[in-house]
Amino acid sequence: MSQYKEILLTARPDGKPVGPHLFEVINKGIPTPGKGEMLIKQTHMSMDPAMLGWMTPDEDSYIPPVALNTRMRSSGYGEVITSNHPDFSPGDNVMGMMGWTEYTLSDGKGLNKLPAGVDGETALAVFGLPGLTATQGLFNIGKPQAGETLVVTGAAGSVGSMVGQLAKAEGLRVIGVVGSDEKTDWIVNELGFDGAVNYKTDDVASKLESLTPNGVDVFFENTGGPVQQHIFDRMNVHGRIVVCGMIADYTAASPAPGPNWIPLIKKRILIQGFAMPDHLHEAPRLLSQLNPYVAAGKIKYRTHVLDGLESAMSALNLFFTGANKGKLLIRL
Amino acid sequence: MSQYKEILLTARPDGKPVGPHLFEVINKGIPTPGKGEMLIKQTHMSMDPAMLGWMTPDEDSYIPPVALNTRMRSSGYGEVITSNHPDFSPGDNVMGMMGWTEYTLSDGKGLNKLPAGVDGETALAVFGLPGLTATQGLFNIGKPQAGETLVVTGAAGSVGSMVGQLAKAEGLRVIGVVGSDEKTDWIVNELGFDGAVNYKTDDVASKLESLTPNGVDVFFENTGGPVQQHIFDRMNVHGRIVVCGMIADYTAASPAPGPNWIPLIKKRILIQGFAMPDHLHEAPRLLSQLNPYVAAGKIKYRTHVLDGLESAMSALNLFFTGANKGKLLIRL
Repeated sequence: MSQYKEILLTARPDGKPVGPHLFEVINKGIPTPGKGEMLIKQTHMSMDPAMLGWMTPDEDSYIPPVALNTRMRSSGYGEVITSNHPDFSPGDNVMGMMGWTEYTLSDGKGLNKLPAGVDGETALAVFGLPGLTATQGLFNIGKPQAGETLVVTGAAGSVGSMVGQLAKAEGLRVIGVVGSDEKTDWIVNELGFDGAVNYKTDDVASKLESLTPNGVDVFFENTGGPVQQHIFDRMNVHGRIVVCGMIADYTAASPAPGPNWIPLIKKRILIQGFAMPDHLHEAPRLLSQLNPYVAAGKIKYRTHVLDGLESAMSALNLFFTGANKGKLLIRL
Repeated sequence: MSQYKEILLTARPDGKPVGPHLFEVINKGIPTPGKGEMLIKQTHMSMDPAMLGWMTPDEDSYIPPVALNTRMRSSGYGEVITSNHPDFSPGDNVMGMMGWTEYTLSDGKGLNKLPAGVDGETALAVFGLPGLTATQGLFNIGKPQAGETLVVTGAAGSVGSMVGQLAKAEGLRVIGVVGSDEKTDWIVNELGFDGAVNYKTDDVASKLESLTPNGVDVFFENTGGPVQQHIFDRMNVHGRIVVCGMIADYTAASPAPGPNWIPLIKKRILIQGFAMPDHLHEAPRLLSQLNPYVAAGKIKYRTHVLDGLESAMSALNLFFTGANKGKLLIRL
């Protein structure tokens, strides 16, 4: 087989569910790497909420959007097939931005070689963007202290589940906000969270109050939506709010307003938004912060795997409904 | 004269304008200082927006409220009359929390001795709470860089006018938001701000856009109100928002909502609320940060002086209407 498939972004999101009408699947001949290049066969593609932002031009965004009629952007995991690059050999497992494609050429820039034995699911679910994001946001912005209380939204998601487990390992009381009883069960009974709020069925304010008797010191925000104000109301003096994602508001025509700022003064609260492209150059340091927790068996994860390149085209909708269970991946 | 007047807080604010119905004026005999004490004749009392918060119990507040039937709290400037304290002598000028009173005893705790020649108005307008607040908020949170743009609300106020002048001295483009043409004239033509928005008469969004062609890097918030969202919309990537005051919202039954948090992620914005009681122990360091600007003649100020202790009882209302021009003081 000398052909492979690749998917181009051909239209901007139009308010309808993201699907094949925004993309074109093309067939291409498998290329031969030039000087200093290598050919990679991608085996796993990571699907992340940030990709929704990459599809739409926005002068405020932190990285340029994907240009129309070019390969859709994503990070992934694969194997080096042939290499003219001095640092990579056939059989090496690599992770990096490869896009929606079965094969890609690379000059090695932005690509990380993984230790043997780290499979694609672990790589993308733990050491990829979710792990880097959780580590940067929790430790370097949230600055958690043993004995404090953390609340994380999107708690069963790839970032949220890791934030909660890292905070538990640090000795915090950890409460997760989720959207189903199945997710409640997973984060409490499998991951060891101290409690969960199901924002779809619980009385959020009273449940939060009973689960955070000492208030909230760190609020790790992955979702936005009405639950935000309730958590904000529970913040303690000198609390830290890490703003990582606002998935509930991304598609709203006019996003809901946020909390009034008076409590920021009364409680001297910090709010810090962040995005990983600012910190990818720190990846080695972040991975060394994260790795001891993984090595000590503190980090469990689960993946939601879809099969085949074409399944990527509709996969992003799962973030809006919360229907994915665990890190969303495409297996090629 | 062996009697002096003092004012007690006897009722909590009730939604009506702050006035004599909340206070009681009492006459007392001038006391004799005991061992380690001194007697101070207060000559100037500082009136600050924070005092409104001190009058109302609020479990979230940064310092306990003034207890009913005790002396109302305030900072002031005065002269040592008699002293049994080894560090203070008759004739010394001092500044500190003295409350609404013509005379007070002190053991020196929390009291700062001022260099000879610093009069009461300068002391309270520049080296008192406004100067410490502007210094902490601007330099230690806002981290201004030459060439950046700063927008400050309440720009003709005691804190705002100092923030703007310090930022100008650091080489920033400085835009102030005020509520009258007279204040516009003062901050632009006297203080050297690069521009002003009159939020009562200007089309705020378009005026801000034309005055901040390169966006806003530092937003120093003293007022709240609808102007907040417009400034927020102009924030640049890696912008810093210093939340110091929200006077426009303090008396609202239900404070207006704040901005949605999506831009915090896209632009990686920091928002930090602060209150000076956290930083009073750092006063010597803050004063040494501030003093070079004062010594170099970079800081102009004006005062709005009312006469007589009793005038304090209605003075705080001026903050709601913005009718005070400059640092509000009571001369005793």
